[in-house]
Amino acid sequence: MASDGPGAVRVAILGASGYTGAELLRLLSSHPHTSIAALSGERSAGSPMGAVFPHLAFGPPGGFVASLPDLTTTASVTIIAQLPLDTVRVVDLSADFRLRDVDMYATWYGAPHAAVELQAQAVYGLTELARDAVRGARLVANPGCYPTSAQLPLVPLLTAGLIKPADIIVDAKSGVTGAGRAAKVGTLFCEAADGMSAYGVASHRHAPEIEQGLSDAAGQPVDVVFTPHLVPLSRGILSTIYVKLADGATADSLRECLATTYAAEPFVHVLPSGVAPPHTRHVRGSNHAVMGVYADRVAGRAILVCVIDNIVKGASGQAIQNMNVMCGFDESAGLGSTPVFP
Amino acid sequence: MASDGPGAVRVAILGASGYTGAELLRLLSSHPHTSIAALSGERSAGSPMGAVFPHLAFGPPGGFVASLPDLTTTASVTIIAQLPLDTVRVVDLSADFRLRDVDMYATWYGAPHAAVELQAQAVYGLTELARDAVRGARLVANPGCYPTSAQLPLVPLLTAGLIKPADIIVDAKSGVTGAGRAAKVGTLFCEAADGMSAYGVASHRHAPEIEQGLSDAAGQPVDVVFTPHLVPLSRGILSTIYVKLADGATADSLRECLATTYAAEPFVHVLPSGVAPPHTRHVRGSNHAVMGVYADRVAGRAILVCVIDNIVKGASGQAIQNMNVMCGFDESAGLGSTPVFP
Amino acid sequence: MASDGPGAVRVAILGASGYTGAELLRLLSSHPHTSIAALSGERSAGSPMGAVFPHLAFGPPGGFVASLPDLTTTASVTIIAQLPLDTVRVVDLSADFRLRDVDMYATWYGAPHAAVELQAQAVYGLTELARDAVRGARLVANPGCYPTSAQLPLVPLLTAGLIKPADIIVDAKSGVTGAGRAAKVGTLFCEAADGMSAYGVASHRHAPEIEQGLSDAAGQPVDVVFTPHLVPLSRGILSTIYVKLADGATADSLRECLATTYAAEPFVHVLPSGVAPPHTRHVRGSNHAVMGVYADRVAGRAILVCVIDNIVKGASGQAIQNMNVMCGFDESAGLGSTPVFP
Amino acid sequence: MASDGPGAVRVAILGASGYTGAELLRLLSSHPHTSIAALSGERSAGSPMGAVFPHLAFGPPGGFVASLPDLTTTASVTIIAQLPLDTVRVVDLSADFRLRDVDMYATWYGAPHAAVELQAQAVYGLTELARDAVRGARLVANPGCYPTSAQLPLVPLLTAGLIKPADIIVDAKSGVTGAGRAAKVGTLFCEAADGMSAYGVASHRHAPEIEQGLSDAAGQPVDVVFTPHLVPLSRGILSTIYVKLADGATADSLRECLATTYAAEPFVHVLPSGVAPPHTRHVRGSNHAVMGVYADRVAGRAILVCVIDNIVKGASGQAIQNMNVMCGFDESAGLGSTPVFP
Repeated sequence: MASDGPGAVRVAILGASGYTGAELLRLLSSHPHTSIAALSGERSAGSPMGAVFPHLAFGPPGGFVASLPDLTTTASVTIIAQLPLDTVRVVDLSADFRLRDVDMYATWYGAPHAAVELQAQAVYGLTELARDAVRGARLVANPGCYPTSAQLPLVPLLTAGLIKPADIIVDAKSGVTGAGRAAKVGTLFCEAADGMSAYGVASHRHAPEIEQGLSDAAGQPVDVVFTPHLVPLSRGILSTIYVKLADGATADSLRECLATTYAAEPFVHVLPSGVAPPHTRHVRGSNHAVMGVYADRVAGRAILVCVIDNIVKGASGQAIQNMNVMCGFDESAGLGSTPVFP
Repeated sequence: MASDGPGAVRVAILGASGYTGAELLRLLSSHPHTSIAALSGERSAGSPMGAVFPHLAFGPPGGFVASLPDLTTTASVTIIAQLPLDTVRVVDLSADFRLRDVDMYATWYGAPHAAVELQAQAVYGLTELARDAVRGARLVANPGCYPTSAQLPLVPLLTAGLIKPADIIVDAKSGVTGAGRAAKVGTLFCEAADGMSAYGVASHRHAPEIEQGLSDAAGQPVDVVFTPHLVPLSRGILSTIYVKLADGATADSLRECLATTYAAEPFVHVLPSGVAPPHTRHVRGSNHAVMGVYADRVAGRAILVCVIDNIVKGASGQAIQNMNVMCGFDESAGLGSTPVFP
Repeated sequence: MASDGPGAVRVAILGASGYTGAELLRLLSSHPHTSIAALSGERSAGSPMGAVFPHLAFGPPGGFVASLPDLTTTASVTIIAQLPLDTVRVVDLSADFRLRDVDMYATWYGAPHAAVELQAQAVYGLTELARDAVRGARLVANPGCYPTSAQLPLVPLLTAGLIKPADIIVDAKSGVTGAGRAAKVGTLFCEAADGMSAYGVASHRHAPEIEQGLSDAAGQPVDVVFTPHLVPLSRGILSTIYVKLADGATADSLRECLATTYAAEPFVHVLPSGVAPPHTRHVRGSNHAVMGVYADRVAGRAILVCVIDNIVKGASGQAIQNMNVMCGFDESAGLGSTPVFP
Repeated sequence: MASDGPGAVRVAILGASGYTGAELLRLLSSHPHTSIAALSGERSAGSPMGAVFPHLAFGPPGGFVASLPDLTTTASVTIIAQLPLDTVRVVDLSADFRLRDVDMYATWYGAPHAAVELQAQAVYGLTELARDAVRGARLVANPGCYPTSAQLPLVPLLTAGLIKPADIIVDAKSGVTGAGRAAKVGTLFCEAADGMSAYGVASHRHAPEIEQGLSDAAGQPVDVVFTPHLVPLSRGILSTIYVKLADGATADSLRECLATTYAAEPFVHVLPSGVAPPHTRHVRGSNHAVMGVYADRVAGRAILVCVIDNIVKGASGQAIQNMNVMCGFDESAGLGSTPVFP
């Protein structure tokens, strides 16, 4: 984004041939202050957008720019390291700058971090909880989809000391867009439809990202039990979170804390007591996150449920939200669309 | 719509508790010139919108107005007959004013028409093909979903005399929103998912509506073979249309005729030769219609394929498009959203 | 089942107009020792089976018998109480006889138990873990779908003292057949497809049923955190279970315990270490249960995953398995079908 | 199949790593007269069946045999040409031996036929209509899925002269298993779910296969308009067929002809007048074909609808049915399973 304030910003999207890239284009097509300056997608270099994504054929113009390589975990950090951050602002949707501890990065991602000094400048962009830092940032690490759905309800509760840091369990379910657009047998319609499974049990890279955020909030190391699941829907993440109440806390006090925290937020909503639990279809295609808080039958426990659209609030929508904050735009610019139901 | 020109128009939606009502609210939430003045839905009278449709809880405000009865085939015509059409404009999404021949209406709908004189004023609102008439109309009959997908490709070809009026066959497939939101065993997830069937074979009420439009275009009575099918998706209609070429016509000349007819249209698109056939996901959530023309192996024949989102271009989107034309707004107002994919 | 041993058994199915009734007929159509003597389904009284379930039109013969009322929670216990249990054997798929504590039954089901004395004779039929008791039973309470998927992995581990009785969490996901065949808006295709939600949070009736089984195994009262979810597929339950290891226990010792427990079982399978987690499609349409055991990243914890087809092993299949044991048939009779994939 | 009559037959499956191969194994697991002697699947050579298809892990034993190459259009004909047909019987699920006219084969398949002399011995195995020829055959060409659904209703009507040979249109819709198990972007869950499209318009290889069968029946060359569609379900084909009545014929006489033709058939069923049209879910997982006949509103026309499970009656089931006839087994052996619904 080549701009330092309000006005027309020229946007370059690296890796525009994937689902998050297409979603960035869909959302930016209604953004009042941006124009698409460059798109990259190695596999599709030179192809017109309408050939890569026919649903965009009648939307934003602009063909692929072949000069930029496809965005991959290794490539993006290299490209970003070469960008002049005094004139260019970056929102990185990859995982490269999410973990502050570069040793932990090396452990989980199997290679040393390629831009340690840049990491020091990066801001973790869970927008509602890091707005001030994002405002002044040149490089924002956009949070992962699962970490967004887990941290939005948990961080305020740990900060307020309303839940115990121990025995936090996040059972998360994701739609298939989370697996990307690469052709694999496991995500073929006939393999993924009408069934479900857990995957990456006790080994998913989003676990340390969640723990980093919760540890910051708790002021002490927090371990999280995290299990992702693949369910047969295109868009949506639902995280069911099991917590133990701190002394004196109740489900009602947790709900009140979250309702107060997010009272003024346009995209984060806390359901009142007594209404039906959140449904992923009710945020589909939007940047909204909806959460509910429930007292458990088992004494001293509560259950939190949070839903988002994994490629909007969980990826492209939050990236635009961060861009808006960085550029001084209305934070909701390009994000005003109502959820699509059915 | 209480207005005679550009400016803020107050909109009342009768039957807002169904899928097309919800879609009207979703689309109008981005309309620059309208406000919601009244919503009716008998089953849900008095309920806040967010209780009837949670995905709208964070979108447009406004609860249900209990004073208006639910919109039903019989009720709407009665209500409309009582409205002062000199000050109110009506877009009727029901079938009541679609058939000019009130005897045919009585035959297909099982009761005499309740407002014969109003029928004489009604304009059939297939927008692209009736723009001038819609502009001056006080009462527009919004076309059915299947008839929209069938007439957009067929009317220009019959008008131009490029296809024969005989042996036209429309094999149409619809998503389940077409069956409405009433609780029925046949549209339960476990009955409708992962399978398909034909229904209303040789007896669907959209057949005479299609024939009316095609007969007008051909200048002679046209019979149409029409078979609807229910397929396991929420939004989308795909009509596969089998036609015989007039002497001298070719698939290329048909495609050229349609491309010329719709060249300046923002919502109707004719695919060039050699690209993949239209897919319903590529218009999902948008007001776009996309069509392709194919030469058949069998001499003297062509195959047309047209896709729309049945509750947007096939219902609520076209209704707003007609409202925009009636009120002198930008025809695309409230209809600018890019299709949602995946 | 009017028989005391091997040979042709005449089967009466009360409530054959629902999904579990239809599944009983599908499975019994390949059973070598049974014949259908009577079917009841009040809503469908007098209708031929092929009209109620067209997929059965070419399968087992026999129309509905109108003399028996539809099976409902209240009705079945009354009917069963009138049956001569010296000559008739009963497998009750309802919840009436699952809870030994009739006060707890009254609390959870909102009415006093209608057959307290019969309750004393009822055997809880989780077949693999109650085979001897089932063999001599006249009345078997068939386990619920969620309790089957939770108890199969947990009971042997609690019995062996390998996991702690505290902090057991069962996060369960079910296909839509679990909601039954009644016409409701919430289970319409357009409401349930392409999305998911939790329901009955901290209030589902299967929780006390699970706790009863786990408490028996542990020899002390066990509380369970249980959250069911509705996911967009027809058949399948996946339970993700979070447990704490007893001193000295490891994920490997848990897996070994379960592998040993079920080594000779035709329907319960424990995955070896290192293979992909269980997928519901791999048991679809069969009586198989498949489970995996995983060491957690968090010290002292393990994660168990168990999948079943909710209307086979979770209902009709286990009912036939229990019938086979009660009647002295091969326990796999009528249950030999391979899972249907895709 | 190394056998000349009833008794245990040793079956070798070439290409067992695809969906039709897996379905052959599922169905043969309940066959009383066969044993699996060899399985081939190049991609999976050496892998145990449970690794390639986990749903078969608890079903039929037997790992992959690496000595045979994977079954591909080119390879199978070569392998078959080397087999001793005096001792081995072959059912070929590929298209190599379906077209009698080897010049037409070359035109449609882009290469000269590799075994012209074998072609002369091959029998086209649409079982119900070629039973006697199949009985004596050494090599049976198993029909394609679309051609099976089109020829079962059309062949008897053309043979009886009840419909005109001109203007026959087959609009066919298939589930995604028809696209095979190869990893392709177009059949990923996120691309294929919740949408539909036509494909291979006027260019699908099943068209000449259908025309061959209809021309034989009519005793004159018959052209067929054929359009396949991909719909979001795993198993099922629905063909909607538009025909013109011969002089004196009516929809009732067509239905009566088909009902008489298939009266004694265990797998082909003609719906009586007045019942709901056939639904693919009602044949799911079974070898059944169900058809309905409907009078059209347009004079002189009728509409036929036929549903099958594309990988059972449309592939693996019919292959076993042909094997049963060739080997003198009960024609229903291994094919007795009731459809799986929901």
